[in-house]
Amino acid sequence: MPLISLLTDFGLRDPYVGILKGVIYTIAPQVQLMDLTHGIPPQDVAAARFALMTAYPYLPAGTIHLAVVDPGVGSNRRAIALQTAQGYLVGPDNGLFSGVLTFSPPLAAIQLNNPCYWRTPAPSFTFHGRDIFAPIAAHLANGIPLSELGDPIDPAELVRLDWPEPQPTPKGYHAVIQAVDHFGNCISNLPGHLLQGRSWSVWVKGTRIPAALTFADSAVGELIAVVGSSGWLEIAQNLGNASRTLGLNVADEIRVEWL
Amino acid sequence: MPLISLLTDFGLRDPYVGILKGVIYTIAPQVQLMDLTHGIPPQDVAAARFALMTAYPYLPAGTIHLAVVDPGVGSNRRAIALQTAQGYLVGPDNGLFSGVLTFSPPLAAIQLNNPCYWRTPAPSFTFHGRDIFAPIAAHLANGIPLSELGDPIDPAELVRLDWPEPQPTPKGYHAVIQAVDHFGNCISNLPGHLLQGRSWSVWVKGTRIPAALTFADSAVGELIAVVGSSGWLEIAQNLGNASRTLGLNVADEIRVEWL
Amino acid sequence: MPLISLLTDFGLRDPYVGILKGVIYTIAPQVQLMDLTHGIPPQDVAAARFALMTAYPYLPAGTIHLAVVDPGVGSNRRAIALQTAQGYLVGPDNGLFSGVLTFSPPLAAIQLNNPCYWRTPAPSFTFHGRDIFAPIAAHLANGIPLSELGDPIDPAELVRLDWPEPQPTPKGYHAVIQAVDHFGNCISNLPGHLLQGRSWSVWVKGTRIPAALTFADSAVGELIAVVGSSGWLEIAQNLGNASRTLGLNVADEIRVEWL
Repeated sequence: MPLISLLTDFGLRDPYVGILKGVIYTIAPQVQLMDLTHGIPPQDVAAARFALMTAYPYLPAGTIHLAVVDPGVGSNRRAIALQTAQGYLVGPDNGLFSGVLTFSPPLAAIQLNNPCYWRTPAPSFTFHGRDIFAPIAAHLANGIPLSELGDPIDPAELVRLDWPEPQPTPKGYHAVIQAVDHFGNCISNLPGHLLQGRSWSVWVKGTRIPAALTFADSAVGELIAVVGSSGWLEIAQNLGNASRTLGLNVADEIRVEWL
Repeated sequence: MPLISLLTDFGLRDPYVGILKGVIYTIAPQVQLMDLTHGIPPQDVAAARFALMTAYPYLPAGTIHLAVVDPGVGSNRRAIALQTAQGYLVGPDNGLFSGVLTFSPPLAAIQLNNPCYWRTPAPSFTFHGRDIFAPIAAHLANGIPLSELGDPIDPAELVRLDWPEPQPTPKGYHAVIQAVDHFGNCISNLPGHLLQGRSWSVWVKGTRIPAALTFADSAVGELIAVVGSSGWLEIAQNLGNASRTLGLNVADEIRVEWL
Repeated sequence: MPLISLLTDFGLRDPYVGILKGVIYTIAPQVQLMDLTHGIPPQDVAAARFALMTAYPYLPAGTIHLAVVDPGVGSNRRAIALQTAQGYLVGPDNGLFSGVLTFSPPLAAIQLNNPCYWRTPAPSFTFHGRDIFAPIAAHLANGIPLSELGDPIDPAELVRLDWPEPQPTPKGYHAVIQAVDHFGNCISNLPGHLLQGRSWSVWVKGTRIPAALTFADSAVGELIAVVGSSGWLEIAQNLGNASRTLGLNVADEIRVEWL
């Protein structure tokens, strides 16, 4: 039985995540569920894109990824399911999957317009997670073929939400912060391989931050620039919160300079 | 093996939820556990009643609902287990289940006074979740009959915690907010079927809020009144937090007026 | 198939917990995972030690405890796996396990220096949870013997993080708060058995707090001193938050006085 991973902006205070799971277990009682996160800031599709892209390579092949961050629910945004070489993606067509799709391209794409596989032919106008996406994920886990779930669509026409690329400069790169994690680590859009074999440091708002391999290379409280565990250049602070210390947030610019 | 759902006010910072699960797995190693929520505000039985009532219809038949929001622990409040047509309810007799019981009436009710099925015959004075309720849920999952767990009690004598009904007025209805969710949606006590076939809008603190079917019918930042996914009239804001914008909270009044 | 319990300071907002679980399910698809907590304050090894020690006695025999609060990642701190009579402990050698080991001593200890059982022979410098500890827990669940995972080490040389003992005084005891929970209950380092058969009360910052058996012995809003569910003397408030009311926090002193 495949694994279903869940990613939403529902938080854990309300019963909404439990409702998704209840709907899934009702259709596919033996399925294994795994929370990726439910702490995406409300309606923040870009944050969801980044979190899913970051976790995706570490989940088992065949995983069904159910992702519901859906500010357009009730509009004409499409409900979709995609097949990749690694598994399935189920959710709204709003760019949420465009990070994953850069390295795990869609083999097939379906618009979820076959109400036989919805929870009800008259779904709520505000909670397609419960009435469309969760049932679809459960039916996929039960082995229903993707092609049964609706009409094929052209993967090239999926909504894309792409983060800007880092810009090379005469002295190094301009980059931007694409996520700030719970530890206050500020994760940029610059892939670490661009820094290989060079000596460099980072400028953040007039402060020079030295390159390091790991926290252990720095003193307590020191700010460092490291290539993090997902391969991006990150700004971190040993036993501290770099985001708070520097006032550094998503979309802020940083500069890499060769030494 | 049936599913056990968990709802508490324990939060996720402390090890208490893990302790409940450890006790359950020790007794019933093969059981499937599902978190409904552990984010009920501390000791807020009314919030627990609403969350359980909201999720309950979407869980599989046969689910054992373990619910521990228990400010009266150690007092003479009764520990109970109830059977309904949909499954079992296990927790304190403080009104927590009275929302569910309005649409899923008890077929049998037991006071949990048989210490053979507790974790210890000398339970903690402050943590019946660990020492009574979790073991009882696990024994039910193992197939122990309800009648073994204690003495039958009269379902009519269960503690009730009922939310006031909306009041009809010459112009429409007076209603009150019964929950505010993580998105800031303010969920009233007015069931949407009372609005069917009429034109209406809502007044909140001097502001008129138009009816809508879904967020997509409104502009970004606009306040709307919708019948939400659980069938209640809700006040919401497109890409915003209606509760914060309006200062609207649990127990506040709103007025529905026919157009 | 044994249970793997997870305890981290990763929070639930980022995808890091999902990544740990994805790595585990990739290696051991049938394993059962159980979150102990991911809400340990960032890098707070002492809080992790207390949470793990508190939950440990309630988990099934044979559980594999994966615990990652790891401010020294990338330094020369050792990665370890321990066997006890109750199961296995996997994580950094920074004192995290020293609470558990006081009552469940190590039968064997291994330094995790066999890269065959890591996710990759070139692990990240900053995320050994993903690349070393989670794979090791999964391989243990698959039945790989502890001795395969690296070289034996002397349990006597494990890093210890011990909380001070309560100090007897002519009038009673000096104790300190070792944890404050989500309810605001302030848990001291004084084991309740030291109070048995005596009459006593507690002084906190000039306020006398009477002993009670349970919340039900007090009026709403009253402060009480109880022996809590894990056996420690706690300061609590009936339907309130004792920590907030008293300004009482971890490491603060309290005094027990015989009556």
